[in-house]
Amino acid sequence: MSLIVQKYGGTSVGTPERIRAVARRVARYKSLGHQIVVVVSAMSGETNRLIGLAKEIMAEPDPRELDVMVSTGEQVTIGMTTLALIDLGIKAKSYTGSQVKILTDDAHTKARILKIDHHNIQEDLDQGYVVVVAGFQGVDEQGNITTLGRGGSDTTGVALAAALKADECQIYTDVDGIYTTDPRVVPEAKKLDSITFEEMLEMASLGSKVLQIRSVEFAGKYKVKLRVLSSFEEEGDGTLITFEEKNNMEDPIISGIAFNRDEAKVSILGVPDKPGIAYQILGPIADANIDVDMIIQNVGAVGTTDFTFTVNRIDLSKALGILNEKVKGHVGAREVNGNDKIAKVSIVGVGMRSHVGVASQMFRTLSEEGINIDMISTSEIKISVLIDEKYLELAVRALHKAFGLDA
Amino acid sequence: MSLIVQKYGGTSVGTPERIRAVARRVARYKSLGHQIVVVVSAMSGETNRLIGLAKEIMAEPDPRELDVMVSTGEQVTIGMTTLALIDLGIKAKSYTGSQVKILTDDAHTKARILKIDHHNIQEDLDQGYVVVVAGFQGVDEQGNITTLGRGGSDTTGVALAAALKADECQIYTDVDGIYTTDPRVVPEAKKLDSITFEEMLEMASLGSKVLQIRSVEFAGKYKVKLRVLSSFEEEGDGTLITFEEKNNMEDPIISGIAFNRDEAKVSILGVPDKPGIAYQILGPIADANIDVDMIIQNVGAVGTTDFTFTVNRIDLSKALGILNEKVKGHVGAREVNGNDKIAKVSIVGVGMRSHVGVASQMFRTLSEEGINIDMISTSEIKISVLIDEKYLELAVRALHKAFGLDA
Repeated sequence: MSLIVQKYGGTSVGTPERIRAVARRVARYKSLGHQIVVVVSAMSGETNRLIGLAKEIMAEPDPRELDVMVSTGEQVTIGMTTLALIDLGIKAKSYTGSQVKILTDDAHTKARILKIDHHNIQEDLDQGYVVVVAGFQGVDEQGNITTLGRGGSDTTGVALAAALKADECQIYTDVDGIYTTDPRVVPEAKKLDSITFEEMLEMASLGSKVLQIRSVEFAGKYKVKLRVLSSFEEEGDGTLITFEEKNNMEDPIISGIAFNRDEAKVSILGVPDKPGIAYQILGPIADANIDVDMIIQNVGAVGTTDFTFTVNRIDLSKALGILNEKVKGHVGAREVNGNDKIAKVSIVGVGMRSHVGVASQMFRTLSEEGINIDMISTSEIKISVLIDEKYLELAVRALHKAFGLDA
Repeated sequence: MSLIVQKYGGTSVGTPERIRAVARRVARYKSLGHQIVVVVSAMSGETNRLIGLAKEIMAEPDPRELDVMVSTGEQVTIGMTTLALIDLGIKAKSYTGSQVKILTDDAHTKARILKIDHHNIQEDLDQGYVVVVAGFQGVDEQGNITTLGRGGSDTTGVALAAALKADECQIYTDVDGIYTTDPRVVPEAKKLDSITFEEMLEMASLGSKVLQIRSVEFAGKYKVKLRVLSSFEEEGDGTLITFEEKNNMEDPIISGIAFNRDEAKVSILGVPDKPGIAYQILGPIADANIDVDMIIQNVGAVGTTDFTFTVNRIDLSKALGILNEKVKGHVGAREVNGNDKIAKVSIVGVGMRSHVGVASQMFRTLSEEGINIDMISTSEIKISVLIDEKYLELAVRALHKAFGLDA
């Protein structure tokens, strides 16, 4: 007998029929003798509907009251899911975040879980109940309803699995696992049976939006065994996210190719090369709440330097405005320019730690396809390059093949 | 400075625009220096939508889980109402039933309030907050979410007013007060400035559906000053519901004319007149959960009796079926028949206690209009008659005039 936490996202509980399908799956696991905790999101579209209602009243809704409203989305789903289980003759009981209780800090709309009181749930499990918990929500020390921010239901699932010392936390979504890259770009992309937490972190932050990055960090911290599966398929073991280092010689060096089309590049050229220049450029950008991803600084003409960074595309014109108005004259730069026709491609794999030549193979592959590299940034287990957007699919396919992922 | 509880029903908070209107009204009261607690229902239609979702999953939803779902309706409205107040620059804070906490028994979908912990609310009021509370819901001793049943938001308002020792509980609805009768039937109907609790109880149970009967009983028990007003009009003092007996000679004997088209008449004729016959007839009806309103028993032919009662129209065929199958043969009755083309008209007024001749004036008025009376039942402050449905409007108009309510 295992204790399994199963988390179902918005599309998995998007209609009454889908909710009944979830109940049937839970029933199957239950019939195998497992104890099951189900964590559900709001029905797809419901959170946006509630935010829309709030914004009809107040353009920038008070966060405490927004949480009161938005948290009802999951509350409706726990009721429906529990009804579907009871309708199958299964003992089941729902819990809101505050009923559990999932104690968070008071940072409304982006609260962090501090502690989970799992005793009532454990008691219900021991009495044979399936317990259905509202994802994405908690309660602060004063009893105010909080939400964990978008995608927070994954975090709820992992945190409950950690508190209950569950054998596995299964994240059900609309894909059947983690792939070597996006199958829509590379039809030869393969589902991975397993991936390490570190790789998953790099894949997630690079745009493979299967799991929320915070929930992966959380799982790593508490050593929760995480599995990604499809709620739309009856069979399949999904992808297991592991803590073990791969040390099998046969394992591939690279686990996957991630990419991202949401960034834009900003350059400020001919800046006098003085200490503190990076701060003078990025300080005003940060003050405007613009997130910066890649940053590089190159030596330019004598005594000057060229500074380039990437931002989210929707922030490009704002960033250019700030640089032109507040920075360019101040630091004595020659030119400011931006480009949103770029894409980022990354190869990810713990194997590259112990393999020299991974970077050079990546660069050679791109060069053989005639693809120019704009920027490079590296970490221990990934290498990212910025290229012209129009070559994105070509680059991903070529790298997928070159690193043996097609096999 | 007064402490006022204002309760707004579903149509009063039916749209974001209506909610903003509620906030403006609250702001006006607040600017006069009053402390305000606002109790809101779900937006009109929302409760039915949620019940519909539950029934899509399970034909007869588990009551605990139904309450989890349905209670979200009011939770959304407290968020929106509080946002609207904050948007007007007013300090405001929302409370769900369990945050208050409004402790109830565990009779899901029809729970009764046991105790209200008003200390947090009082503290917020003293700090200048407008407090917005979800109507219709509470929490039981075990922390399960409960609902008070349809119309329970009125009860929440009155119970909060009692707990906080409020100066007045204002019930906002889509009518501007209690009328002598339905103005759609009698254009001369007048709004009453005040009405006694006992009269209100008779009016409410007789089909003037402005206030929920339970909330009126509750107000009477705790001596809460209740006022019915329209949320759709800027001005007006509505109708105050008082505890004082009217003892002014000038006060009218009759306060209003109530009527009801929802009943049907059931007769079982030629029953041998023996002890226990009423129970043998009504027992099986009660067992089938059919509510009975008026009951009369008349002596018929020698040694037999005729028994007649009224039920809700939707229960007529069920009641006839039970009488024909389980009762008629058993008690040896001659005939069973039903009639749903009937209506009940009642005159209500505490004044009739001390005035003889009220009944005879009622019967004479109806007789002068050629209206036959089918059944009569009386209480201390009301007289009800059952007549042919087609004469309903005529009867109401004639009685309204005869008792001087047109004046």
